[in-house]
Amino acid sequence: MRRSIATVCLSGTLADKLSAASGAGFDGVEIFENDLLAAPSSPAELRVRCADLGLAVELYQPFRDAEALPPDAFARVLRRAERKFDVMAGLGADTVLMCSSTSPEAIDDDDLAAEQLHALAERAGARGLRIAYEALAWGRHVSTWDHSWEIVRRAGHPSLGLCLDSFHVLSRGSDPSAFAAVPADRLFFLQLADAPHLSMDVLEWSRHHRLFPGQGAFDLPGFLGNVLAAGYRGPLSLEVFNDVYRQSDPARTAVDAMRSLVHLEEELGRAPAVSALRDRPALTAPPRAPELTGHAFAEIGVDAVSRPVLGHALETLGFTHTGQHRSKPVERWQQGDATVLLNAASLLAGDLGQAVVGALAVSSDDPDASVARAEALRAPVLPRSKGPAEADMAAVAAPDGTSVFFARTRGNWMADFLPTGDEPDAGTGITRIDHVGLSQPFDHADEAFLFYRAVLGLAPETSNEFAAPFGLVRSRTVVDRSRRVRLALSVAVLRRGEWAPGVPDPQYVAFATDDVVATGRALRAAGAPLLRIPDNYYDDLDARLALDPDLLAGLREVGALHDRDAHGGYFHLATTVLGSRVFFEVVQRTGEYAGHGSVDAPIRMAAQRRHRLDPD
Amino acid sequence: MRRSIATVCLSGTLADKLSAASGAGFDGVEIFENDLLAAPSSPAELRVRCADLGLAVELYQPFRDAEALPPDAFARVLRRAERKFDVMAGLGADTVLMCSSTSPEAIDDDDLAAEQLHALAERAGARGLRIAYEALAWGRHVSTWDHSWEIVRRAGHPSLGLCLDSFHVLSRGSDPSAFAAVPADRLFFLQLADAPHLSMDVLEWSRHHRLFPGQGAFDLPGFLGNVLAAGYRGPLSLEVFNDVYRQSDPARTAVDAMRSLVHLEEELGRAPAVSALRDRPALTAPPRAPELTGHAFAEIGVDAVSRPVLGHALETLGFTHTGQHRSKPVERWQQGDATVLLNAASLLAGDLGQAVVGALAVSSDDPDASVARAEALRAPVLPRSKGPAEADMAAVAAPDGTSVFFARTRGNWMADFLPTGDEPDAGTGITRIDHVGLSQPFDHADEAFLFYRAVLGLAPETSNEFAAPFGLVRSRTVVDRSRRVRLALSVAVLRRGEWAPGVPDPQYVAFATDDVVATGRALRAAGAPLLRIPDNYYDDLDARLALDPDLLAGLREVGALHDRDAHGGYFHLATTVLGSRVFFEVVQRTGEYAGHGSVDAPIRMAAQRRHRLDPD
Repeated sequence: MRRSIATVCLSGTLADKLSAASGAGFDGVEIFENDLLAAPSSPAELRVRCADLGLAVELYQPFRDAEALPPDAFARVLRRAERKFDVMAGLGADTVLMCSSTSPEAIDDDDLAAEQLHALAERAGARGLRIAYEALAWGRHVSTWDHSWEIVRRAGHPSLGLCLDSFHVLSRGSDPSAFAAVPADRLFFLQLADAPHLSMDVLEWSRHHRLFPGQGAFDLPGFLGNVLAAGYRGPLSLEVFNDVYRQSDPARTAVDAMRSLVHLEEELGRAPAVSALRDRPALTAPPRAPELTGHAFAEIGVDAVSRPVLGHALETLGFTHTGQHRSKPVERWQQGDATVLLNAASLLAGDLGQAVVGALAVSSDDPDASVARAEALRAPVLPRSKGPAEADMAAVAAPDGTSVFFARTRGNWMADFLPTGDEPDAGTGITRIDHVGLSQPFDHADEAFLFYRAVLGLAPETSNEFAAPFGLVRSRTVVDRSRRVRLALSVAVLRRGEWAPGVPDPQYVAFATDDVVATGRALRAAGAPLLRIPDNYYDDLDARLALDPDLLAGLREVGALHDRDAHGGYFHLATTVLGSRVFFEVVQRTGEYAGHGSVDAPIRMAAQRRHRLDPD
Repeated sequence: MRRSIATVCLSGTLADKLSAASGAGFDGVEIFENDLLAAPSSPAELRVRCADLGLAVELYQPFRDAEALPPDAFARVLRRAERKFDVMAGLGADTVLMCSSTSPEAIDDDDLAAEQLHALAERAGARGLRIAYEALAWGRHVSTWDHSWEIVRRAGHPSLGLCLDSFHVLSRGSDPSAFAAVPADRLFFLQLADAPHLSMDVLEWSRHHRLFPGQGAFDLPGFLGNVLAAGYRGPLSLEVFNDVYRQSDPARTAVDAMRSLVHLEEELGRAPAVSALRDRPALTAPPRAPELTGHAFAEIGVDAVSRPVLGHALETLGFTHTGQHRSKPVERWQQGDATVLLNAASLLAGDLGQAVVGALAVSSDDPDASVARAEALRAPVLPRSKGPAEADMAAVAAPDGTSVFFARTRGNWMADFLPTGDEPDAGTGITRIDHVGLSQPFDHADEAFLFYRAVLGLAPETSNEFAAPFGLVRSRTVVDRSRRVRLALSVAVLRRGEWAPGVPDPQYVAFATDDVVATGRALRAAGAPLLRIPDNYYDDLDARLALDPDLLAGLREVGALHDRDAHGGYFHLATTVLGSRVFFEVVQRTGEYAGHGSVDAPIRMAAQRRHRLDPD
C-alpha cells in the first residue's frame, strides 16, 4: 500500500518537509494549507518538485467550516472552495479534506449539511476532484465518524466520501468494526495517528500530543484492520500533531514515521480482520523479532581519567577484570552472568573524565534475523569492524546514539578477549544485568521508545512521570517476553535549561542480586562508592510501610531504597556518578514487581547532587 | 502580613530552596515532605537552618489519605501520623496540611471523616499541633471547600481547621464570599496560586500549570479579600506547582514569587472586601504606576559589522540620523515621534554581526515614582551612568536582560545628543513606535509577563499560541491604559533545540503608519530590506476575505500581511533579520484591533528563513 505523511507532522518550511518525506521513502504527502501559504513556489511548481522527489500529492487539507451554514455564509464558502480547487488543480491533488464545522454560525441540520456538501461535491466533481469529509472529535454538531457517514450518505454524491482519522474515531471511543457498513467506494482517505491516554480537552490532546503508531496507547492495528476489511485501498497516511516533532529535525522524524508505518503493517498482517481478507492488500513483513535471552554486556566508553574511576567502582562492586580485547583497548569485567566492558577507544573528543554507556548487547537466538529486521525497520546498521579471529557481531544505532549489539545466545564473542588470568571470585551476590537506564535526548524520546519496541521486539512495561529535584522526568520501561532484557528510558519533560545542576542525561547499569542487604554490606566493606541516603527517607518508609525492623535497619545500613507495587517489591542501591554521567545500581526484585523504582529517583538524584557538591 | 512560600514552588534540593526563599525576603516556608525526605539534615537541624535564614516553618505538607477509612486502615494512619508529628516537632512546624482523601479505600461518609479527623486532631492537640484540612479539587468524596468545612464543623475540635487553597476553590468555580460563614479561628492556613484557564483534567492542571498571582487568569485579589474579610490573619503562602519553575533557577523564581505577593497585596488594598474592614491587615502599597504616554525610544546594541546594516535599514525606512551622544558611541535616528538609538557600546562579547534590542524607554509622567515602584516590586534598578550635562535617566532590568528606561514625558533627555545637523525629512509615513516585540527566555516568560504588568502597570491585551515553522510559540501582549505603550512577549513553548534553524529569540521594533501600502511603496523605492511574501498567501487572503481588489493588489505589491479580528484590521510589513536576531516592522491598525498579527508570524518566519538561506 502507498505510504503518505502529512506535512504538518514535520518541522521546517515546506521545502524542508518535502525533502524529509522523500528521503524517508514515503510515496506521497498531504499538503497542509499553512505550509503552502508560506511557500514561495506556485502550486504548479510544487507539483513538479513533488514529482521530482517521487511524492504524490495525496491530499490537500484542511478546508474548514464548509457546511450547514446560512445562505450568505455558504455563498462565501463556494467562492473560497473554487479558489482552493484552483490550488489543487495546480498541485495535482485530487482530494481535499473538509472537516466538520466548528463555526458558531453552523446550524444543527444534517439535511442542510448534506445539501451544501452535495453542492460543493458537484463543483469538485466537475473539475475531477473529490471531497473527503471528516468528523472532528470537537466538531460543533458533527463529532463522530458515524454522524459524518450519515451526512455523506444523505448527500449521495460520487465526489463526496469519508476521511477516517484514527484519532478522531478512537478518542471518542467509537467502534471501528462498524466501518464495514460503509461501501468501499465511499472511503476516500485514511489518516493514522496514535496518542497516549490523557484526560484533557480533546482538541488540545489532538493538537499537541498525537504520536506515530506504536508510540501511544491506541489499538492502531485493530483500527486499520477494520478500515481495510471495509475495502479501503488508498494510502496509509500519517497525520500527527505533536509539539516535540514540530521542532525536531524533520529528516529524523520522517524516518521515525516510516518505521512506525512499517511496524504497523507488520502488526496488521496478524490482525484477524485482515488475515480473513481474500483480497489482502500488499503489506510489508520484516523478519519477526528473534527471542532475546538477556543482556550480554553493557559497554562504557571511558578516557584516561574516567577509566580508573570506573575500574575501581567495578572492583569494589565485586567484578573481576577477566579479559582484554585482542585488538582494541577494551577491558572485560565479569561477575556471575553480568559483563561490563570498559572501552577506551569509543569516546568522541570531549571534556576529560567522561564516561558514557556507549553500547549494550542483547543475546539473540538469531542475530542475523535481528539485523535484517532492524534494516527493514530503517534502523541504521553500523559497519562491522572485526580483526582476525574476532567474533562478527552486528550492531545498530539507537536514536540516542547507543550501539545495540546482537550477540549470539550461545555464541563465541568472548573469544575476542584474551584472558587476564584472573578468574571471577565469589563476588558480592551480583548475578546478571537487570536493566540498563538511558536518558533520551528530548527530541527523540518517543522515537527511542518505538525503536526498542519495533526493532528489538520489546514490550512496554511501565510508564510514569515524577518530579525530580531539577525538573519533571518521564520514564518508560520496555522488556522482552522473558523479562530478561529490560531498558528504562527517561526524558526531561521540558528539555534541560541552564539551571539544573543535576547530572545531565544520566545513564546507568543496574545489576541484579537476590539479597540487596547482603550485597550492600559486601559493597560497603569493599569501599564501593555508594550513596548515603538520608535518615528522613527511612523514617518515612517506616511511617508508611511499617517494615520489619530488621529489614528496615538493613536497608538503612546499606542505603537501599525501597518501592512496592501490587505485585511485589523492589530494593535498589546506587553509586555516586562516575565520570560525567554514569552510575551503577544493584537491585533486588521480589514477586512480580515491574518497573525500576522511579518513585525514589528524586532521593537518589538529590544524594548524587550532594556528593558532587561535596565529595566524601 | 507574613509572606510564605511552599518549597515545592522552587527547583533544586531543600538546601537550594531555603536559601532562595530567604534571599527573596520571605518570612516563612511550607516544607513539602518529599523535599524533607531527600535532605540529609534531621528535622531539628533544619529548624536551626531555617531560623538562621530568618524563615519560620509555617506548614508541613501534605499528609494524604487520612480520613473516612475502614478501621484497620485508619489504625495505620494513626501510626503514620504520630511519626509525622515527631517530624513536625523537630522542624518546629505547628500545622500540618491534611488533604481530602483520593484513596479508593475511602468511604463516602462525612460523619466517619469527621470522627477520624477528630481523633487525629486530639492527638495533634495533645502535642500542641494543628491540622489544616483541605479539599482537593479531585478528592474522592470531598472536593469542594464547603464540603471540607462541613466536616471540620462536624468534627468540632479546636486543633482542626481549614486550609483554603485558591486553586482548589477557584478551579471548581466556588464562591469565595461564602468564607464569611466560617469563624476566623477555624481558618488555619491559606495557600495562593493563580492559573491560566485551561480545559483539562483538574489534577493535571493543578500539578503542572499553576502560576504565581498575577500571571494567570484567576481573581486572586477578590479571593484573598474574602479570606481576610472572614478574619484570616495567618501567612499568605504561595503554593505553585509549575513545570517551568520546577526546573529554573530557584533564586530567580523566589524573587518573582515575592513580586507576585507584593503586587497582590497592592491590588488587594483596593478590593472592596478589604477596604471595608475595620481591622485591616498590614498590606504593602508601592507607589502607583504613573501614567505612561508612549515609547520614548528603542535602543539596539550593535557592533562594527551590524551597525552599518542597521543604519542602512533605518535610512531606507525613512529615518534620519539626527544626533550623536555626547559621551557614548550612540546614534539617534528619528522619524515622526519614533526614535531609535544604535548603541555601539552595549553589547557583551559575542559573534561579530550581533544586533540586540538592549533597551526600551517608556515616557512616564513621574519617572521617580516609576523607579520607586520598581524597587518596591523587587525589580533590579540599574546604576545610572551619566556624564556632565546628560539627562539623568533611571532604568530597571527586565527578566530577559532588557533595560527599561523611564523618560520624563516632557523631559530633556534629547539634550544628551549633539545634533548631527541633519533634520528629519518628510519620511515614509512612520509616526511612532507601535510596539516592541521581545522573545523571552524559556525559564522566564511568566516572570516577564508579571514584571511588565506589575512594574510598568501594563495590562494583558491578547494571548495566543501558534505553530511556527520551527515549533510552537506562545505570545502575550501587554498595553498601558492609553494603548500608547505596547509590548509583545513571546516564548518557544518547548525551549528551542538543535534543529530549529529559525532566528533564535527574535526581537523587533514595530513602527506605526496610517497607510501601510503608501509607506511600503516608499520603502520599496528606497531599497528597504523588506521580505518577499509568497503569492500563495495573497491568493488565500483573497479566498478567505474577498478583499477589495485594489487593496489586495497593494498589499501584494508591498508584501504586507493582513489580519482581522472582531474590532478592526491589522497590516504589517517586516524586514529581513538584521544582524543576528533583530528586525523592523511597519504596521497599520484600523478600528480597535488588538494584538500584533501573530497568526501571520509563521509566514514571516518562513520568509526570513528563506532570506537567510538565500539572500537576495
